[in-house]
Amino acid sequence: MISFLEQEIHSQPAVIARLLEQETARIDQIVAQLPPFDYVLMAARGTSDHAATYAKYVWPALAGYPVALAAPSLHTLYHTPPRLNGALVVGVSQSGQSPDIVAVLAEGRRQGRPTLAITNDGGSPLATAADHVIELYAGPERSVAATKTYTAQLTAMAMLGSAWRQETERQAELQRLPETLAAVLERAGDIAPRVERYRYMQGCVVIGRGYNYATALELSLKLKELTYITTTAYSSADFRHGPIATISAGLPVILIMPRGATFDDMHHLAQDLVQRGAELLIISDEPSVYPMATTVLPQVSGLPEWLSPIPAIVPGQLLALHLAQIKGFDPDRPRGLQKVTHTL
Amino acid sequence: MISFLEQEIHSQPAVIARLLEQETARIDQIVAQLPPFDYVLMAARGTSDHAATYAKYVWPALAGYPVALAAPSLHTLYHTPPRLNGALVVGVSQSGQSPDIVAVLAEGRRQGRPTLAITNDGGSPLATAADHVIELYAGPERSVAATKTYTAQLTAMAMLGSAWRQETERQAELQRLPETLAAVLERAGDIAPRVERYRYMQGCVVIGRGYNYATALELSLKLKELTYITTTAYSSADFRHGPIATISAGLPVILIMPRGATFDDMHHLAQDLVQRGAELLIISDEPSVYPMATTVLPQVSGLPEWLSPIPAIVPGQLLALHLAQIKGFDPDRPRGLQKVTHTL
Repeated sequence: MISFLEQEIHSQPAVIARLLEQETARIDQIVAQLPPFDYVLMAARGTSDHAATYAKYVWPALAGYPVALAAPSLHTLYHTPPRLNGALVVGVSQSGQSPDIVAVLAEGRRQGRPTLAITNDGGSPLATAADHVIELYAGPERSVAATKTYTAQLTAMAMLGSAWRQETERQAELQRLPETLAAVLERAGDIAPRVERYRYMQGCVVIGRGYNYATALELSLKLKELTYITTTAYSSADFRHGPIATISAGLPVILIMPRGATFDDMHHLAQDLVQRGAELLIISDEPSVYPMATTVLPQVSGLPEWLSPIPAIVPGQLLALHLAQIKGFDPDRPRGLQKVTHTL
Repeated sequence: MISFLEQEIHSQPAVIARLLEQETARIDQIVAQLPPFDYVLMAARGTSDHAATYAKYVWPALAGYPVALAAPSLHTLYHTPPRLNGALVVGVSQSGQSPDIVAVLAEGRRQGRPTLAITNDGGSPLATAADHVIELYAGPERSVAATKTYTAQLTAMAMLGSAWRQETERQAELQRLPETLAAVLERAGDIAPRVERYRYMQGCVVIGRGYNYATALELSLKLKELTYITTTAYSSADFRHGPIATISAGLPVILIMPRGATFDDMHHLAQDLVQRGAELLIISDEPSVYPMATTVLPQVSGLPEWLSPIPAIVPGQLLALHLAQIKGFDPDRPRGLQKVTHTL
């Protein structure tokens, strides 16, 4: 029987199409209603925190708003919440349940700041605590590892950025997401046998930059949750400030390097890594770099860089799924995890 | 001959004493001169980014200011710098050289926002680009891996938080740092033989929460730079949202868990980890948890939690130093790294 995880990965074109259809008008409405603010404070954990990391790039790039990622323990453990003058407070959570994320939003409301929840459950505590709610309409996610709700969160971030920007071209680009996701999934049909090579991989490094730093973080988390390997994600710049010392011959490094403003930087790093003997797995829509890779993870061209993280995670999800199966692990029920995590 | 790294680790009580003596008055002056602002935008890389992570907790906790960590590629690669209304822009860099960090500060100045550099080189490009400079006076750092400049950066963050707070008690606590660091170093005199056990360790996980999330990040980086092992740092809350699945019997986990508001949360995690068969290394001033640890890394009691990251990193620096020596690596010249990293 096909796993929930595999079903959910393959449902992503339909999920994103539904989100674009259902929430575009509501997001325009939210943008019209929000009072002025200078910056965004976002609270999120796990996969949702990676979606927030994408917002940290896409909101300033499209709309000029700086994004701060909250430190929830200031609210829940130290009881010293910051003064939120000038902030739009945003909470991101698939379930809308984690008490620490709800606490940050509730503090925003207490201080009279505008609040927004991005969640898959419009009736959750997070949604209830917020002035405005963007609902993902992704349907119940039955696999513990998040996939469709992650790409839906990214799409919601992109839609909000585009609504602030008010450019028809950005909106037209968003509409191409479902067909792009479908094309990536189709091209990835033969990925399973190529994953065999990594059966005994002990660990790996995942690197992206800018918009795709989020992809590196999320791909790394999928590998941890589903295959239990030790892996760390970096931006290419942070990686050069120390961790590059860990590279030794044969170490697998996954690079997310779509065409765009970050491509040259990632390309230089790829060349450096080849010289140091690393073994590359590459996710890119630029075929000229494929000869550097031992394994090319499929991507299709045609989307601009700002939307590239949404299709770029898909081959990573499939890599983690197939590696879990090859190792004999249940992809729907990772050891020691539950779907909803409550942290303070 | 004793390495520069070891000399610099042992110089920390004197370095911190000098910093407290030289910069307290200047920091009070900076605080008096700064115009009003709502939040702080900080740019930093590598070790300096971990000091910025400490500021993300200590400045809101002491002074109420939220802290956003900048995304330098918005400035250097995407050429879409955010609008910085309401921000104090802070750049942190030992050398003051990295162009991406300088670019963020220069943009702050271009937009008429107040700017502050925290650096060990008062004549560096970063210092030149800033309205205000806190200089570390740590002396030249000759080992590639930063140690004394890290604890000096943390101390500068704590001094600034305390200057905003204006409480004599906080200032008195700061004055106890040099003696506490000296006591930790003295107690750590016998650490070398206990590090032998980890000669063939392939990887490990490092976890802290709140103020000591920075310690986890920095300890993990020291191990990567000096011993080339694969290691990842987490906050205890983030760790529960997925990565905890990677724990298997025998996996070494380093926990930084001083007394304070985060202790109970870390203690619960420690108990969970023991149940999952992990092998614990503990850095704590609370002796009741020592029986859970295979290795207790020395700490002394007496400092409040907000200052605990400054002594807490010291046994981690020594662990990385001795593990490098046991493995036959040169602690002063990690492979593939240079002292000053230029990233865009």
